[in-house]
Amino acid sequence: MDDPDHDELTRQVVDRFADTPDPRLKEVMASLVRHLHAFAREVRLSEAEWREGIEFLTRVGRITSERRQEFILLSDTLGLSMLTVAMNSARRAGATESTVLGPFHVGGAPRRGQGDDIAAGAAGTPCEVRGAVRGVDGEPIAGARIEVWQADAEGKYDVQRPELAAHRARAVLETDADGRYGYRTVVPAAYPIPDDGPVGAMLRATRRHPWRPAHLHFMIAAPGYSTLVTHVFRAGDPYLDSDAVFGVRQSLIVEWKQRPDGSLLVEFDFALDREDAVAGRPERR
Amino acid sequence: MDDPDHDELTRQVVDRFADTPDPRLKEVMASLVRHLHAFAREVRLSEAEWREGIEFLTRVGRITSERRQEFILLSDTLGLSMLTVAMNSARRAGATESTVLGPFHVGGAPRRGQGDDIAAGAAGTPCEVRGAVRGVDGEPIAGARIEVWQADAEGKYDVQRPELAAHRARAVLETDADGRYGYRTVVPAAYPIPDDGPVGAMLRATRRHPWRPAHLHFMIAAPGYSTLVTHVFRAGDPYLDSDAVFGVRQSLIVEWKQRPDGSLLVEFDFALDREDAVAGRPERR
Repeated sequence: MDDPDHDELTRQVVDRFADTPDPRLKEVMASLVRHLHAFAREVRLSEAEWREGIEFLTRVGRITSERRQEFILLSDTLGLSMLTVAMNSARRAGATESTVLGPFHVGGAPRRGQGDDIAAGAAGTPCEVRGAVRGVDGEPIAGARIEVWQADAEGKYDVQRPELAAHRARAVLETDADGRYGYRTVVPAAYPIPDDGPVGAMLRATRRHPWRPAHLHFMIAAPGYSTLVTHVFRAGDPYLDSDAVFGVRQSLIVEWKQRPDGSLLVEFDFALDREDAVAGRPERR
Repeated sequence: MDDPDHDELTRQVVDRFADTPDPRLKEVMASLVRHLHAFAREVRLSEAEWREGIEFLTRVGRITSERRQEFILLSDTLGLSMLTVAMNSARRAGATESTVLGPFHVGGAPRRGQGDDIAAGAAGTPCEVRGAVRGVDGEPIAGARIEVWQADAEGKYDVQRPELAAHRARAVLETDADGRYGYRTVVPAAYPIPDDGPVGAMLRATRRHPWRPAHLHFMIAAPGYSTLVTHVFRAGDPYLDSDAVFGVRQSLIVEWKQRPDGSLLVEFDFALDREDAVAGRPERR
């Protein structure tokens, strides 16, 4: 398949980055060029297809704004975001798995106390969420910072409702002396990722649906431990096997138990890796 | 290097495109995902680097407009444009080599006659360009449509000067009964590609210069022949070995001869492939 002429062109482009002062940038650019060219050669990309690709990226750029990040959506739907998360969450057996941060995390979430209702007016079936935060060796972690955020019964996050003056179904909590946490909220619904842009067009052209299974977001930080960014999914959700952004991990799925009063109970214990356990794989740059 | 978990994720993403109705789109998406993931795994992309990549593409999108195509510039500087051109110009020995179209081709160029001055006020040393258009078997091609465009002595194209009311150094010509063409113009200068955007920042970070060697553009079409898009470069230009967009082909470099009156003479004969010669590699879609 490979024409020696085309291989020579690839070498020429890689060589052009030879004087890059930052060795890591040089490594990344060389690998990017080799894989980009290998893709074009493997499919023998036509000039019309190249133009379509340029126009697609141009549309992705045009719809991206302060409120909408279509490039992240593209990375998410091509599995690149989850691959990056998976590669960078070095973890020992027993530590809770990471998953994608997603586009709905924002700063400024209100602090809430143990057992508080964080829904703040978000619509949905009442729900209690509780559990413990421990180290992988089982030691309870007191005073861990737990940030939580989620969609409401309509599958919408507070930040998707510009009319809201205050955050809903979003909070910062702290574990107690026994490492325990607990809050009340509403049951989040499954939801489609924004699909009225070029990424949505790509999903339709390839007969993929835009849905994510229902989930609760957690970001858990404690001194001496690796910060954990993850979700808790609901057993039985119809989209668990086909999450549009590939974020589901088997170990993050639990039964959300129905109580006699119609409310639900979600119990999940988190296990954090010690920071020194991942020191061998530092975040680069 | 490859972690089986990450391979499994890549397979899962490729499988998600299984129901794509257009088999070519399915093939392209599967290859794109495999190569994108292989790149991320090879460099073990960090989450900070992933964010930098998203921000870079966001900046490329933001600067792109009706007058500026930064995605094409990115493709050009990574050698993807030239690779696509090279793969799609199937040609028999003796046919003139193709190169990149570039971002300065526009419709509406004025028709000019044999020997006319096409400069139309563009600044620069006078220059005559002439030669023949033939088939690869040597037959002269009468009535071939030749579109020409070029930079001026300051390295600027007419479309980069919004104050101009009419085209300059840009024309549509026709070969005579013997397949000959000829026009007068000005000598184009070498020029830097637009480098005040994110692609320019990438070039600076990797110690690459933005220059293209001086060249004349040609697009030549005739019934029964493959349309040829190419350049003619000037021997001795200091940027021939380091064209920022990798468009130089040895066979397209000729001496631009100095005449006693100070003007230059560029002589170049083009050889077009017959259309049926490339029927085995049709442009896809």
